[in-house]
Amino acid sequence: MTTATLPALTFQTKPADYRHWSLTFDGDLARLEMNVDGAGGLFEHYDLKLNSYDLGVDIELADALERVVFEHPEVRCVVVTGGIDKVFCAGANINMLSTSSHAWKVNFCKYTNETRLYIEDYSENSGKRFLAALNGTASGGGYELALACDKLLLVDDRNSAVSFPELPLLGVLPGTGGLTRIVDKRKIRRDLCDAFSAVAEGIKGKRAVEWNLVDAIAPLSRWDEEVAKLSRELADEVDDRSDCKGITLDTIERTEVDRGLEWRHVGLRFEDAPSGQDRVAHLTLTLPDAVGNTDADKLHAEGADWWLFRMFRELNLALLELRVLRPEVALVLTRVVGKPEVAQAIDGVLDNASGHWFIHEVAHYVKRVLKRYENTAKSLYAVMDEGTAFVGTFFELALAGDRQYLLNDPDVEVRVGLTSANAGRNPMANGLTRLGTRFLGTPEKEQEALAKAGELLDAETADELGLATFAPDDIDWEDELRIAIEERASFSPDGLTGMEANLRFAGPETMETKIFGRLSAWQNWIFQRPNAAGERGALKCYGTPHKPEFDYNRT
Amino acid sequence: MTTATLPALTFQTKPADYRHWSLTFDGDLARLEMNVDGAGGLFEHYDLKLNSYDLGVDIELADALERVVFEHPEVRCVVVTGGIDKVFCAGANINMLSTSSHAWKVNFCKYTNETRLYIEDYSENSGKRFLAALNGTASGGGYELALACDKLLLVDDRNSAVSFPELPLLGVLPGTGGLTRIVDKRKIRRDLCDAFSAVAEGIKGKRAVEWNLVDAIAPLSRWDEEVAKLSRELADEVDDRSDCKGITLDTIERTEVDRGLEWRHVGLRFEDAPSGQDRVAHLTLTLPDAVGNTDADKLHAEGADWWLFRMFRELNLALLELRVLRPEVALVLTRVVGKPEVAQAIDGVLDNASGHWFIHEVAHYVKRVLKRYENTAKSLYAVMDEGTAFVGTFFELALAGDRQYLLNDPDVEVRVGLTSANAGRNPMANGLTRLGTRFLGTPEKEQEALAKAGELLDAETADELGLATFAPDDIDWEDELRIAIEERASFSPDGLTGMEANLRFAGPETMETKIFGRLSAWQNWIFQRPNAAGERGALKCYGTPHKPEFDYNRT
Repeated sequence: MTTATLPALTFQTKPADYRHWSLTFDGDLARLEMNVDGAGGLFEHYDLKLNSYDLGVDIELADALERVVFEHPEVRCVVVTGGIDKVFCAGANINMLSTSSHAWKVNFCKYTNETRLYIEDYSENSGKRFLAALNGTASGGGYELALACDKLLLVDDRNSAVSFPELPLLGVLPGTGGLTRIVDKRKIRRDLCDAFSAVAEGIKGKRAVEWNLVDAIAPLSRWDEEVAKLSRELADEVDDRSDCKGITLDTIERTEVDRGLEWRHVGLRFEDAPSGQDRVAHLTLTLPDAVGNTDADKLHAEGADWWLFRMFRELNLALLELRVLRPEVALVLTRVVGKPEVAQAIDGVLDNASGHWFIHEVAHYVKRVLKRYENTAKSLYAVMDEGTAFVGTFFELALAGDRQYLLNDPDVEVRVGLTSANAGRNPMANGLTRLGTRFLGTPEKEQEALAKAGELLDAETADELGLATFAPDDIDWEDELRIAIEERASFSPDGLTGMEANLRFAGPETMETKIFGRLSAWQNWIFQRPNAAGERGALKCYGTPHKPEFDYNRT
Repeated sequence: MTTATLPALTFQTKPADYRHWSLTFDGDLARLEMNVDGAGGLFEHYDLKLNSYDLGVDIELADALERVVFEHPEVRCVVVTGGIDKVFCAGANINMLSTSSHAWKVNFCKYTNETRLYIEDYSENSGKRFLAALNGTASGGGYELALACDKLLLVDDRNSAVSFPELPLLGVLPGTGGLTRIVDKRKIRRDLCDAFSAVAEGIKGKRAVEWNLVDAIAPLSRWDEEVAKLSRELADEVDDRSDCKGITLDTIERTEVDRGLEWRHVGLRFEDAPSGQDRVAHLTLTLPDAVGNTDADKLHAEGADWWLFRMFRELNLALLELRVLRPEVALVLTRVVGKPEVAQAIDGVLDNASGHWFIHEVAHYVKRVLKRYENTAKSLYAVMDEGTAFVGTFFELALAGDRQYLLNDPDVEVRVGLTSANAGRNPMANGLTRLGTRFLGTPEKEQEALAKAGELLDAETADELGLATFAPDDIDWEDELRIAIEERASFSPDGLTGMEANLRFAGPETMETKIFGRLSAWQNWIFQRPNAAGERGALKCYGTPHKPEFDYNRT
C-alpha cells in the first residue's frame, strides 16, 4: 500500500452513517453493539468477517464513544457487545493486516490503542463505566477491546472463549495493548499469561474466571438478566448526571487550499523541502481576538462551536491527517498565533467553570489531544516568534514537542506563560505533568517556573527559566531555525521515530507508556520480520493453503 | 553472518591475554585503560580503529570488571580511561555492525548493555566507584560506557567532546542504553537530549557540564591532578576493604560431549526437534551431595572452587553459549538436580555469612546471572520432576522462566521450597522480587507462599500455593510436557521473543527494564529497517563513498 492508494479518510463519521456499530440508549445505559458489515472495509480486497475490524470500524467506535461522552452525559454505563451469533469480535482483520504497508499497520494499531485508552480515561474521569458483554468468542483485538472495559462478562455456552491467537496463528503479538493489559492491568500471573497467549482456541468458562481473564460468566438462559444486573451495578458506581443535557457534535468542515488544509481555527501548510518532498508541515492554531463567553452555561450553549473545543477537535483531525495520510512529513513546526492574554484567559475559564460537566469534558478532551500530539511519529518543534501566544494550555503544545525555539530579541515582543494548565490538568502518558517531566532532574526549576504562573513572561525571562531549548536573537533566528529544519528533515525517519519514542516519555512508566513504548516497539519489530510479513510468513499465509515457513533462529 | 561462520567464542579471557585493555592497580585505585588493538577483532574483515569495539573487546571489559570485584576487593575506585591520543572511545565498530547479522547485532548490544548495568550494580552493591576519565572524545557507545560510571570528567582541550553521532551519521539509536541513560539516569531535559543526539560532533567544554552531559572538565595541564582528586573523592565514598584478600578467578573448563556441553556442575544437551533442528536444549544444574563448607573463611579459601559460585559462573557461560552460538534453540528446559536439603542449606550459608565480602559478592553474582537468564531470548520452562531440587535460589530459576511444570503425583516425591533467596535477595530488573512480580495482582498469595519459607513442600502444596503453572500427575505428565515443548518449538521465534519481553517484566519499570524493554526494541526495529540495514542504508554506506538513500516516509 503506497501513499498513492491511501483512502480519502476524514476521520469523522456520525451514527446515521455507521455501517458497523449501533448505539442505543436506555436511560443512563447505552448499548454499543458491533455488527460489522463485511463489505464495508476501507479497502475492497478484504471482507470483514466475524466482526473483524479495520481502521474504518475503529473510527466509528471512537466516534460513538465521543458521542456518549458529549451528547449523552446522562449515560453512566456502556454495554459493549456483539451483534452476531456466537462471536463478540474476531479482532483486527487478518487480510487487512497481511496486505497493509508497515506504516499502515503501525498507525492502525496506534489509533486502536488510543481509542482503548480513551475508554479507560472515560471510566476514570468522565463518569462512564464499560461492561464488555461477550456474547460469543472474543479473539485477539476483540478480547483486547473487552480488556479496556471495567468488567468482562463472558457467555458460558461451552464454546465461547476469550483468546489471543496472534502468536500461535499469526506469529505476531496481541499487540494493541493486549499483553500489557493482561499482565499489568489485570495483573494476571505472567506464567498464566504465557500459557494463555499460546492457546489459539483460548480459555472459556470457569477457568477464564479463575485466571482473571474475565470477571464473570453467565449461561445463555441468564444472559440478559446478568448483563442488566452488572451494567446496573456499574452505572450505580458513578454520579447521577440525569440533569445534564448533551451537546451536538457536528461534522467539522475543512477547506483544501494551495499546499495545505484549513479548518476554522487550525491550519496545516506543507512546505517543499530542498528535495522537493513535503517533509515539513506548518501547524498553526489561531486564537480568537477575545476569549469570548466565560460563563459555563453560555459555553454549554455554544457546545461544539465553543472555540477551544472546536480548535482541539480540529487539531485532532490535523494530527490524524499528518500521521496516516502524510507519511512524507518528517517535521511539524507548530505555532499558536494570537494574543497571549486570550490564551491566558481561557485557562481561567477552564478553572472557574470546571464544575460544569461540559467544561470538565472539554478539559479532558484537550488533555487527550495533547497526548495524541506527542504520540505522533513526527518531529515536533514549537516556533515561538512574533505574534505567537504559547501560554498555559498552549504552552503544553510547546512542552509536548521535541524542541522549543524562542525568539529572544529586545526589539520583538514575544510572550509566553504558564498557568494551572501546566500544573496538573494535562498529565502525560507517564502520569507526570510536562513541566515535571522536563525538569525531572531539577524539580526546583519546575517550582521556580511555576512560581511565575499567571504572568506573561518576556523571552529573556522564559529562557532563563529553562522554558526554551534555543532562544536565538533576531540575527541568528532564521539561520538557526533553517539549519535545524533542514538537518531534521535529512535524518533517517526510523531513527527519529525511535529516538523520540525514547526521549519523550522520561520518568515513571504506566500501562500507557508500556503500550506505546514497549509493546508497540516489539510489535513493530515483529511486523517487519520475514517470519510474519515475508512471502511465507505467518501473516501472509493465514487463510491460504500454505503453511508458514519460519527461520527458526531466535534473535 | 550465518551460524556456520560464528567464531569459536568461550566468553572467557584473562588479563595476560587482553589485547584491548590494561588493568593496573595502585592501592585502592584501579586503572582500566582502553587501547584497542585494531587487528584484534573477532572477525577479520574490519579494523577496530579509534578505540572502537566489538564483542571481543566487551568480553575483556566484563572480565576485567569481574576481576576487580573478586580478585581485588580492596579497590574502591576504578578509573576508566583511554590509552590513545585525543580519543577515549569511538563506540561500537561500524563495519562490524554493518556486516553483522541482525541476531548478532542484537546479542552484541544486549551483552554490552548488561556489562554497563553491572558497572552500576558494582557501584551500588559492591563498594566500587567508577570515574570515566575522558582523555579525548567519547562517541556513541564510548560515551554510553562513560554514562555507566558514577562520574564523568572530560578533558577541556577545545576538541574533545561527548557525542551520540548514531542518529545523524548512522540512522540508528544510541541504543546500548544511551538514550535511556541521558534522559532517565542523568535526567537531562528531554529537549536538550534531543538536540544533543542530533549533533554528530557532540558537545564539549563548559556546555557539556551545563547540560549535565559530564560532571566536570579539566584542561590538559591539570588533567592528572583532577583525575587523581576525583578518583580519591569517589574512593573515599565507600568502605575501606584494605584488609580483604581477593580470590583468583581461574579459567573454567568444559567438555564437549555427544550433542552437548558439560561443565563441572552444569550441563547443556541439545535435542532434536521433529524437524531435525536443535530447537530444544536441556539445561541441568547438578547440586553436590552435601552443602560443604558453611564457614565464610573456609568458603573464601575455596574461592572460585566453591560450588555455588562455580555453578553460577558455569551457568553464565552456558547462557552466553545459548544466546550467541545456539540461535536455533527455541526452548530451554531447566532442571536443578539433587537433594532439596542441599539447595535449602546453601541459602542458610548465604544468610549467615553475608557479612563476609566474598559471600556478599557471590550472592550478587548469582543475582546477576539470574537476571541474565530471564533476559535471554529463549523460552524457559522449569521442569520440576523426580530428583529435582527447586528450592530457594534455585526456585528463582523456576520463577525467572516462562512456565513451571511440576510433577504432582502421589507416588513420586518432588519437593520444592522457598527461602530468604525468594524474599528480596534477588531483585529482578523491575526492582521487585520474582515472587512479588508473580503475585502482582494478589499480594496476599505472595505472603501466603512466603509464610512457608524454610519448609520443603510437596508438589500438591506447592501447586495450591500457586508456585506451578501446570502440575499434571504421572499419567498426563509426559504427554502434557511433550505437547508443550513441540508447540513452543513450532511458534514464530520472533513472536516468542516479543511476547516474552512483554510478559517477563510486569509491574514497575526501571532504567534496566527501559533499556531492555523499550530502547532495545526500538533499536532492534531500526536495525532491520532498509534505511539502516539495506544496501543503501546509513549503516551500510558509512565509511564508503556512497551517501545513504532514505525512504523518508515516517512510520
